[in-house]
Amino acid sequence: MKFSFSRRIQNTPKSFIREILKVTENPDVISFAGGLPNPSLIDTEGIEKAASKVIKSDGRCALQYSTTEGYPPLREYIAERYNKRYGLNVSADEILITNGSQQCLDLAGKIFINKGDSILMEKPGYLGAIQAFSMFEPEFFSVPLEDDGPDTESLSEIISEESPVFFYGIPNSQNPTGITYSDEKRKDVAEILSEAEVPFIEDDAYGELQFDGKVKKPVKYYMPESGVITGSFSKIFSPGMRLGWICADEEILEKVITAKQASDLHSNYLSQRILYKYLEDNDIDAHIKKINSEYKRRADTMIKAIEAGLPPEISFTRPEGGMFVWLRFPDSMSSMDIFEKVSERDVVILPGTPFYVNGDGARTARLNFSNADEDEIRTGISVLSEVIKELYY
Amino acid sequence: MKFSFSRRIQNTPKSFIREILKVTENPDVISFAGGLPNPSLIDTEGIEKAASKVIKSDGRCALQYSTTEGYPPLREYIAERYNKRYGLNVSADEILITNGSQQCLDLAGKIFINKGDSILMEKPGYLGAIQAFSMFEPEFFSVPLEDDGPDTESLSEIISEESPVFFYGIPNSQNPTGITYSDEKRKDVAEILSEAEVPFIEDDAYGELQFDGKVKKPVKYYMPESGVITGSFSKIFSPGMRLGWICADEEILEKVITAKQASDLHSNYLSQRILYKYLEDNDIDAHIKKINSEYKRRADTMIKAIEAGLPPEISFTRPEGGMFVWLRFPDSMSSMDIFEKVSERDVVILPGTPFYVNGDGARTARLNFSNADEDEIRTGISVLSEVIKELYY
Repeated sequence: MKFSFSRRIQNTPKSFIREILKVTENPDVISFAGGLPNPSLIDTEGIEKAASKVIKSDGRCALQYSTTEGYPPLREYIAERYNKRYGLNVSADEILITNGSQQCLDLAGKIFINKGDSILMEKPGYLGAIQAFSMFEPEFFSVPLEDDGPDTESLSEIISEESPVFFYGIPNSQNPTGITYSDEKRKDVAEILSEAEVPFIEDDAYGELQFDGKVKKPVKYYMPESGVITGSFSKIFSPGMRLGWICADEEILEKVITAKQASDLHSNYLSQRILYKYLEDNDIDAHIKKINSEYKRRADTMIKAIEAGLPPEISFTRPEGGMFVWLRFPDSMSSMDIFEKVSERDVVILPGTPFYVNGDGARTARLNFSNADEDEIRTGISVLSEVIKELYY
Repeated sequence: MKFSFSRRIQNTPKSFIREILKVTENPDVISFAGGLPNPSLIDTEGIEKAASKVIKSDGRCALQYSTTEGYPPLREYIAERYNKRYGLNVSADEILITNGSQQCLDLAGKIFINKGDSILMEKPGYLGAIQAFSMFEPEFFSVPLEDDGPDTESLSEIISEESPVFFYGIPNSQNPTGITYSDEKRKDVAEILSEAEVPFIEDDAYGELQFDGKVKKPVKYYMPESGVITGSFSKIFSPGMRLGWICADEEILEKVITAKQASDLHSNYLSQRILYKYLEDNDIDAHIKKINSEYKRRADTMIKAIEAGLPPEISFTRPEGGMFVWLRFPDSMSSMDIFEKVSERDVVILPGTPFYVNGDGARTARLNFSNADEDEIRTGISVLSEVIKELYY
């Protein structure tokens, strides 16, 4: 039988990353391609204790259907942390718990995008967001990222020409580039968006992964009403438990609740309860500090290896948080060719094209430093450097 | 600021059930309105043991990111159970694990519905499906349900006139009516749909909740290629863990995988692992038998109370499975008026209008029998009967 599929799904290509990640299942492969937290930093013992306590003390409730918004004390915790850490002024009523922060993008698409609407992203931008928003058939526009955030001139221009329904970006340790917006850029972005009445979808998946522990005010701080901020417990607790959240003005959140209920009724309630018990019984700040110190060491190792091994024509970012380093090759090089050659030697990098909405990026690549250990990082970069020399020198 | 929301979300009303369920949080209220499994039938002890084992033995893996399709042994288990129980011939490659079976409807909408496409449901039909599909802005059509399944004449007619992109239905213990399709109707439906090349989305949430343990072949059995069947562990394991699945031909499943990845990357992996460990260590068939025997007793109690208390002009279904009895009032009565009056006396029923795509159903109501205990069922139906007598006699 010939099936008749929707346009949205016909036009969504198979994820390149999915294909790559299949290769990296081989344990002999050194992978810089994924975005996995380091498994040694998942507190399995603490989580086991929390799970056991929750099910033993209140299992019938924790295993039953629950509300669409999520577990109230967990929502309260998130709101309070925002207010303390970021100086926001939000309440638990402005928080909804999602299946990881990827679901926030699906929900944002559902409530904001009509087919053919313009939406604005960073260039390069998070490929999972491109996939999520594609389901709602928008026109994609993207604003170039400079070292300290979006090119604001270009931002103003696109906004006035295309009237996007929102701007989506990652101000802290952006995926894929690792770039963090400066305070000034945050203010400028908020000003431009507020004036044009364009909401900002502020993906803050890496907000807690800041190596020096210092915190910048989120863009939402400068545009509280129309800033929608999303967060994730995947990087500091457990990715497999798929727990994220979306925080927005109550008028927006009401629509998010309707979309969430239509999508899957509510997020895994047992996992919400386990997470909250874990937060009660453990010092999450100490745990985050430990993660940051480990990731900083790995990032430093990668940067040092790149400085020592790669030719100076290749530029790269120096992330102060998150999980990624971004490479820019000169015109003479091709990241796909390099990808293919290093893959043959069991090292996998991620060519940058999937992070562009217009097919650009053929001379860029993303390297993940959180998953591999330091020896693997040194070996992998040395293979990369040898391959580039073989190919181009 | 005036937010500009998508048409789909502007046109989706706040869920009436959500509003009702708020009332039922009061423990003094006898609720027939929801669709909650009985909490006493959740095996908290078994689940606690399974959770502890999984995290202790393989926590770093179980708590990490995982594949979009789901945990392979769990997919294998589901495929094998289908083949053994239903005589299907499916493999694990045709199964994807979802966040409860509600998510299957979101994914089906994503892969099949373009704005303005016709889709076909039962009349009355599951309101969660109406909500899920609404996100993709279809034109809704519905085929009347007779006591043994859809009116096939009407089905043929609508299909030839409207060319729907799929027919969605619940052949086992339908929500809201409790009706089960006869074997003959299943064959007829499959024949009509196959000939017209219209896929069937077969929601089998209640397939395991058959009181006498007997099994009818699913419609997919008669149209293997274009039958999409969805299932749920919510009714036999735990609703709070949000675990369901979708089973479809690989060509369809490939699109489902893309849609699922865009939606939330993958389902809660820890919960999948706990479920599978539970299935390994426990006799799920014995557990299901126990649930069915409890629910049968409650259903019988409700039917007996209805027969004894309600005037004979009110007709009702006699479910042999599932969770619901469906009431049809005569023209002189209004389910909203009855709803309001019984609510004042702390008994909540669910008026039937939300189960109709065209505003019908003003003289219908759904009663849930799985959540309340037998005394509550007797008391609640007696209040309902008194209210009806006060209002109309």
